[in-house]
Amino acid sequence: MLRLTPPGRQRFVQAPHFEVTFGGAEANVAVTLAQLGASASFVTKLPDNELAQRAIEELRGLGVDPSRIVRGGERMGVYFLEQGAGQRAGKVIYDRAHSAIAEALSADFDWSQIFAGAKWLHWSGITPALSPSAAAITSEACMVAKRHGLTVSFDLNYRAKLWTREAAGQALAPLMDHVDVCVTSLEEARSVFGLKVDDAAPNRDEDAARKLRERFGFKTVAFTQRIADSADTTTWSAMLFAEKKAFFSRRYEIGIVDRVGAGDSFTGALIFALRRGDEPQRAIDFAAAASALKHTIPGDYCRCSLEEVEALAAGAGGGRVQR
Amino acid sequence: MLRLTPPGRQRFVQAPHFEVTFGGAEANVAVTLAQLGASASFVTKLPDNELAQRAIEELRGLGVDPSRIVRGGERMGVYFLEQGAGQRAGKVIYDRAHSAIAEALSADFDWSQIFAGAKWLHWSGITPALSPSAAAITSEACMVAKRHGLTVSFDLNYRAKLWTREAAGQALAPLMDHVDVCVTSLEEARSVFGLKVDDAAPNRDEDAARKLRERFGFKTVAFTQRIADSADTTTWSAMLFAEKKAFFSRRYEIGIVDRVGAGDSFTGALIFALRRGDEPQRAIDFAAAASALKHTIPGDYCRCSLEEVEALAAGAGGGRVQR
Amino acid sequence: MLRLTPPGRQRFVQAPHFEVTFGGAEANVAVTLAQLGASASFVTKLPDNELAQRAIEELRGLGVDPSRIVRGGERMGVYFLEQGAGQRAGKVIYDRAHSAIAEALSADFDWSQIFAGAKWLHWSGITPALSPSAAAITSEACMVAKRHGLTVSFDLNYRAKLWTREAAGQALAPLMDHVDVCVTSLEEARSVFGLKVDDAAPNRDEDAARKLRERFGFKTVAFTQRIADSADTTTWSAMLFAEKKAFFSRRYEIGIVDRVGAGDSFTGALIFALRRGDEPQRAIDFAAAASALKHTIPGDYCRCSLEEVEALAAGAGGGRVQR
Amino acid sequence: MLRLTPPGRQRFVQAPHFEVTFGGAEANVAVTLAQLGASASFVTKLPDNELAQRAIEELRGLGVDPSRIVRGGERMGVYFLEQGAGQRAGKVIYDRAHSAIAEALSADFDWSQIFAGAKWLHWSGITPALSPSAAAITSEACMVAKRHGLTVSFDLNYRAKLWTREAAGQALAPLMDHVDVCVTSLEEARSVFGLKVDDAAPNRDEDAARKLRERFGFKTVAFTQRIADSADTTTWSAMLFAEKKAFFSRRYEIGIVDRVGAGDSFTGALIFALRRGDEPQRAIDFAAAASALKHTIPGDYCRCSLEEVEALAAGAGGGRVQR
Amino acid sequence: MLRLTPPGRQRFVQAPHFEVTFGGAEANVAVTLAQLGASASFVTKLPDNELAQRAIEELRGLGVDPSRIVRGGERMGVYFLEQGAGQRAGKVIYDRAHSAIAEALSADFDWSQIFAGAKWLHWSGITPALSPSAAAITSEACMVAKRHGLTVSFDLNYRAKLWTREAAGQALAPLMDHVDVCVTSLEEARSVFGLKVDDAAPNRDEDAARKLRERFGFKTVAFTQRIADSADTTTWSAMLFAEKKAFFSRRYEIGIVDRVGAGDSFTGALIFALRRGDEPQRAIDFAAAASALKHTIPGDYCRCSLEEVEALAAGAGGGRVQR
Amino acid sequence: MLRLTPPGRQRFVQAPHFEVTFGGAEANVAVTLAQLGASASFVTKLPDNELAQRAIEELRGLGVDPSRIVRGGERMGVYFLEQGAGQRAGKVIYDRAHSAIAEALSADFDWSQIFAGAKWLHWSGITPALSPSAAAITSEACMVAKRHGLTVSFDLNYRAKLWTREAAGQALAPLMDHVDVCVTSLEEARSVFGLKVDDAAPNRDEDAARKLRERFGFKTVAFTQRIADSADTTTWSAMLFAEKKAFFSRRYEIGIVDRVGAGDSFTGALIFALRRGDEPQRAIDFAAAASALKHTIPGDYCRCSLEEVEALAAGAGGGRVQR
Repeated sequence: MLRLTPPGRQRFVQAPHFEVTFGGAEANVAVTLAQLGASASFVTKLPDNELAQRAIEELRGLGVDPSRIVRGGERMGVYFLEQGAGQRAGKVIYDRAHSAIAEALSADFDWSQIFAGAKWLHWSGITPALSPSAAAITSEACMVAKRHGLTVSFDLNYRAKLWTREAAGQALAPLMDHVDVCVTSLEEARSVFGLKVDDAAPNRDEDAARKLRERFGFKTVAFTQRIADSADTTTWSAMLFAEKKAFFSRRYEIGIVDRVGAGDSFTGALIFALRRGDEPQRAIDFAAAASALKHTIPGDYCRCSLEEVEALAAGAGGGRVQR
Repeated sequence: MLRLTPPGRQRFVQAPHFEVTFGGAEANVAVTLAQLGASASFVTKLPDNELAQRAIEELRGLGVDPSRIVRGGERMGVYFLEQGAGQRAGKVIYDRAHSAIAEALSADFDWSQIFAGAKWLHWSGITPALSPSAAAITSEACMVAKRHGLTVSFDLNYRAKLWTREAAGQALAPLMDHVDVCVTSLEEARSVFGLKVDDAAPNRDEDAARKLRERFGFKTVAFTQRIADSADTTTWSAMLFAEKKAFFSRRYEIGIVDRVGAGDSFTGALIFALRRGDEPQRAIDFAAAASALKHTIPGDYCRCSLEEVEALAAGAGGGRVQR
Repeated sequence: MLRLTPPGRQRFVQAPHFEVTFGGAEANVAVTLAQLGASASFVTKLPDNELAQRAIEELRGLGVDPSRIVRGGERMGVYFLEQGAGQRAGKVIYDRAHSAIAEALSADFDWSQIFAGAKWLHWSGITPALSPSAAAITSEACMVAKRHGLTVSFDLNYRAKLWTREAAGQALAPLMDHVDVCVTSLEEARSVFGLKVDDAAPNRDEDAARKLRERFGFKTVAFTQRIADSADTTTWSAMLFAEKKAFFSRRYEIGIVDRVGAGDSFTGALIFALRRGDEPQRAIDFAAAASALKHTIPGDYCRCSLEEVEALAAGAGGGRVQR
Repeated sequence: MLRLTPPGRQRFVQAPHFEVTFGGAEANVAVTLAQLGASASFVTKLPDNELAQRAIEELRGLGVDPSRIVRGGERMGVYFLEQGAGQRAGKVIYDRAHSAIAEALSADFDWSQIFAGAKWLHWSGITPALSPSAAAITSEACMVAKRHGLTVSFDLNYRAKLWTREAAGQALAPLMDHVDVCVTSLEEARSVFGLKVDDAAPNRDEDAARKLRERFGFKTVAFTQRIADSADTTTWSAMLFAEKKAFFSRRYEIGIVDRVGAGDSFTGALIFALRRGDEPQRAIDFAAAASALKHTIPGDYCRCSLEEVEALAAGAGGGRVQR
Repeated sequence: MLRLTPPGRQRFVQAPHFEVTFGGAEANVAVTLAQLGASASFVTKLPDNELAQRAIEELRGLGVDPSRIVRGGERMGVYFLEQGAGQRAGKVIYDRAHSAIAEALSADFDWSQIFAGAKWLHWSGITPALSPSAAAITSEACMVAKRHGLTVSFDLNYRAKLWTREAAGQALAPLMDHVDVCVTSLEEARSVFGLKVDDAAPNRDEDAARKLRERFGFKTVAFTQRIADSADTTTWSAMLFAEKKAFFSRRYEIGIVDRVGAGDSFTGALIFALRRGDEPQRAIDFAAAASALKHTIPGDYCRCSLEEVEALAAGAGGGRVQR
Repeated sequence: MLRLTPPGRQRFVQAPHFEVTFGGAEANVAVTLAQLGASASFVTKLPDNELAQRAIEELRGLGVDPSRIVRGGERMGVYFLEQGAGQRAGKVIYDRAHSAIAEALSADFDWSQIFAGAKWLHWSGITPALSPSAAAITSEACMVAKRHGLTVSFDLNYRAKLWTREAAGQALAPLMDHVDVCVTSLEEARSVFGLKVDDAAPNRDEDAARKLRERFGFKTVAFTQRIADSADTTTWSAMLFAEKKAFFSRRYEIGIVDRVGAGDSFTGALIFALRRGDEPQRAIDFAAAASALKHTIPGDYCRCSLEEVEALAAGAGGGRVQR
């Protein structure tokens, strides 16, 4: 998607110009993986114009293989993002209806060929929300991926501006059969999958992840937790439920530069850590560190290196200038 | 429409930000009229979001009455404009499909009420190109306008990215019955209405206007003529055919800042001049001067005053700083 | 007034450019009202140049009726604003002497005609500080307003760079006869009107408001209270004294984007709430919410909608992006 | 003066920010001299605020000695400059009334002390136009300068927004007694001093300069000549009348970046050349080259080096990048 | 190289910020090829920091394979570019001494491995100018390239700030043995290789190319010719000498946006045309069109598509906006 | 040094432009002194190009005498600064090898002449780290300074990117003989000079300063202490050990705009205070206040006035706008 953002803390109605970047849940995950040094490919459909060309050039530049992107369709999805400040929440104006991917057909994607040589498929709950055909394409991708032995990860990413919680639950639940790694938050899992959890329980989050795992047969469940005081600062932590046990990350107090894409960078870094065989504790620390850093970086993409993530996961994080 | 423009002479694929302005053929005409001091109202349909709110606030600020704009629909039309330079032509990426106005219904507009107190209706050939329903709405507006005794002006404004010349000709011809004042160029009239003119004829343009007038029963026909050497400079002049005679404006050699909207400012200024009862020669001089000035002003809108247009029409135009 | 602001946290002596916006106490109040959906008109005198034209176009765009603004005079008031940061306070360089409004004459304003159809007059303590004639004009406006049955509100807005506390007290006290709603702070009321309050009293603020009301015969008194830790953050709350009782708003901890105009947005929102007949508690909550939001918006003007203010007053305010 | 300029070719009513630079006729001359390597001091009165401090710091940085600037007064002169384009002329909004220098008193300047060690005084016709006291100060400066044996140069610099041609002529003529070097244009000399010249005469400019010299007793007269086709391009040349003969510079066809200050850079470079004893032909070539370069430099000040001016005067000027 | 450029027409001493792009002769050629759709790889040595990482990401994004770039060394070459205007020429401050490539060793490059699968080697005369070791590396690359049967092209690109004409001639002449395609200008060939040509000869350029071909055994020689009137406009054309005959391109009158890299885009497009087997006339037309377009694009890189170049070569080039 | 900084919180790999400022430890100290009103001269070697010219013009503008700067050498030191945010630390890419000062020779500086009329020499531990010749020049400067009776101050300023702690300790220790006033931090003193301090001691910092004083014979020792929570906020305080006793400043909680140069502004203000004979408590309060303010000012230089520093030192610091 093309992202258009008023600079600084200006509102939509004020800014003389909008900053031009690109993003989107799965693209963000792919960029995180590529920036950390893993191979990653992004699959979507984009129209044949210069804006899409730029999005593709940018992905390729950041190390993501764009060769599986199908070209065609009418338009590119656009989203306008107004950064929040203080008591004023950030706002998104979605202009993604009728995008090439929303109107793509199953025939556009030959999944067997796309997955040649691949080990892992990641998708987010936003894609099936775009249109019935996008939902069908997602479902096919999942099925073929499992047939080819790929690990499948999924980030719930519920968007109230795209569908209701009920519609999301009904559409997503059947797809969970194909999912190995589920990334969500306690709140999302409750509202979309109707998960019942006792807030007073001492191990509330762990219990929720266990239940989710049992219901859908996930191998791994990850929760991110945000305690947002304001648009400027947040408290951010994560939990990984794997091997029947919960592992908790360090809790970060974060001064926010750009919060969009933080969840995606968490997911990307978690996939990176799981793919290289990290122990659960190390994996969740690594993923939480990557997403903490993302909050400090303008744009959707997590422009940070493996060394920077490792250093923060290992306990660094002072603000002194490195010189 | 929302217009997004890479600043300076940057290309779509380069610019870190896009400038945010608003425009569109009929809006540009309305703004020209309002800036010259006439009352003008703009009728369209716009969605209920901050981008449309901003477009409306800007129109109101410039003196255009936005109270007849219907709110609703899915999205606002967007166009991306890359300014040309030297041998590189400017480019437009239209992203206006499924806009609120393209998907508006006849029932959205109560033309009798809209025209209460009005004297003049102007529309451009872009609007019926947007969708069948937009064409139907345009037709209704014309019919009601004539019934209420309004003068109707029309600017052909053929856009190859929206429809073919044949389709345009077939759709527009029947609407010409309702048109009093037709603004176009010789080239457009030939290709869209199949006007036959002998290029070798000494009074080629005059003959063409006469034929057009005869075929469609226009009261007045105006041609603009651009001899574009490059994206940076142009030669610009205009002709008014009225009272069975052609009146030619001065010819301007123009260093271009922003050529988009120049034709609309011509039309707006022409309507202004005709409404106040200018003699044909004065009217065409006034309209040509306004559009020459528009070329020097960033954005679609003609931000210049009655005094400035009058001064240029009267022969001013030196570049010396006024101090 | 034209406001010129170094961008970001740059100082006057550094910034390669100054951002151009407009503001001023009464204009800010009018914009707040108009943005919330009320009808509002702004009365002042502005010279006949493009800077004033722009100020007027902007007001009209935001919904404020500028048709009562008198044109003429030598210059427009200018103020240069340097935003503070950390321990460095913001700074204002006023360049408003000899402005059109400061040098306006009583004869410039026909108050009976200006007030035709009006229900409410608001003025601030800055206007009489500009010049003796501005003070006389203010006084006349108040008298005519009362004669026409308007409600009159007043914001003390003491500015040490314009006059001494003693001069302010002497000039303003006689005008208080015409005031129904007084907006100020405890600190201002003490220093300008010499109000005696015991800091140790348990109901100090309430007592002060009661005394003020008794002395000047106000119907309603509102206090804003700022506990400023630094230029970056502030604690902001408000109290409304009406119907012999004090009503306190929620207290906001605010990360500041632009604090200028916060008091004016409080006043505008309070007038809005009182005009629509809000209960005192709801009115003070609404006004405090509007001014909390203003702190997060660049420029003098409170660019936020009725829905946004209502949502914050009702307890929202998390920084999560709305998507 | 503080100069505030909409960037690029934006109009006053459009630009979200104004560029901040400083300028003014005599300051521009001083900067030209200092940048060429001569010692130069600027004398004026400026208020005690950060804007004036910045103007002073900038002058000092560029090599102009600001130690004779008197601090005090109410405000700094401001001028808003809108660059022209094509048929749209540039515009200036002066906001210099009541500036510190306009309201300065004779007692503010001790000319004997100011001229200690000085060899040359330059002033422009703008200064006496500011106010009667500024005119008196200029007259005193001239008289003391002559008493101390300084060479006095004068640039007519007529400004229609400050006074009429008649007022200028009456005020300036008596001061001409003290002037050795007069810089003006044929057109100015005619309209302000009522110089009679026959346009058909073969040596029109030379004759005019001779008459001017005879009437006022100048040692040297310099004319600049601008043939302005548009705001974007100009033809620029100059003539020096000295030793009873006219010397003509090369004629430059110039693509204009910023024409303001071009005349001042001509004057500064001419003073530089005369001070170092250049032959008339070399002096006029040098001065014309400096002012041709100034047209290509944003801001009032002529930021170019002695080497650059010499190279252009010697015939360089191709646009190829030096690498 | 990192390129740092004052925006607009500002000078080095004025600009509050420098625009960040990347370029360099061989990189520009590679980008041109990749943007036209050919496969291209860029070989150099770059340090291990974020600036070099960005240069690499940008190349990869534009389609150039950066996998053969060696990482290491102390610093990246930097060049500061001031765009010219009017009579003021553009300026370059080189800060490329001690760059990683200037201090690279022969052992850094295994040319046999680098050339695996390659068909063509291009180098410019700048590289051997950087240091003796860079010259040695260039020589080795040429020899291995010829051994592997690659076509070798060479662009003289003489830079007076790097070495004298004599030094360039002595260093480059021996390397010409390995060169098949030589790109230069008549002027360069004369001054660096001492080519004797009679300016009065009717076929001067053709004769020069023939002599060059004979002396060094080139298969193909291409000349570009620039007639620079000023920094703003240029006249640009080219000649290809192949198959014993000269072929001349159309002559372009160009309004310049950014002239740096125009020669490189000519070379890149010529290589593209020759590789796909264009007839000489078509090849030179194609290459001249690409370089004409480059003049209109900010930055070193030629960001235009095959379609755009073909269209201009085929005679398009009007400035009308495509819509 | 030329400082190039991505604006806002952008990373090196993202920013379309870098802000251009100048800085460096000793230059920053000199600017602080000059801005406070003291006379200050800066001694270094800079190449003969426009970037160095600009650095010099800026210093002169700010009141620092640049007349002792030697011109010559190959290049100017450059440093790229990426501001940190949240858990992401700021980063510096030094590109200062082979700078004119690093390659300067002893013969470039005639210290006896340079110190004519001087009272104080300040140098930082960065200079001898640049090269052996820079270390030799520093040593000579110290020796000549002491011979001429100057007070010598020294700021340790350890930079891990320039040398190891051991190398720093060995190089600096012998130079301490010439130092009267030493500015450092407890941490630096420990790691570079191997100072042994018991962290549990109640007077740890005082003890450390005493030991340092005893070992090297300093008259005065100052410590700054930073408790950095993140890149956005810091806790900053300082201690002065003089007359056998420690004096502690107030502790500032600072929202950081730009932390680079804060230590230098501390040193500059301390020198200012000691030179005017402040009592130790007043001196340390003054120096701490200046450096607290510096954190709020973009760029290396401390652009604040004596009045501002005195006001903060005296207890001001609220963020309310001064109007």
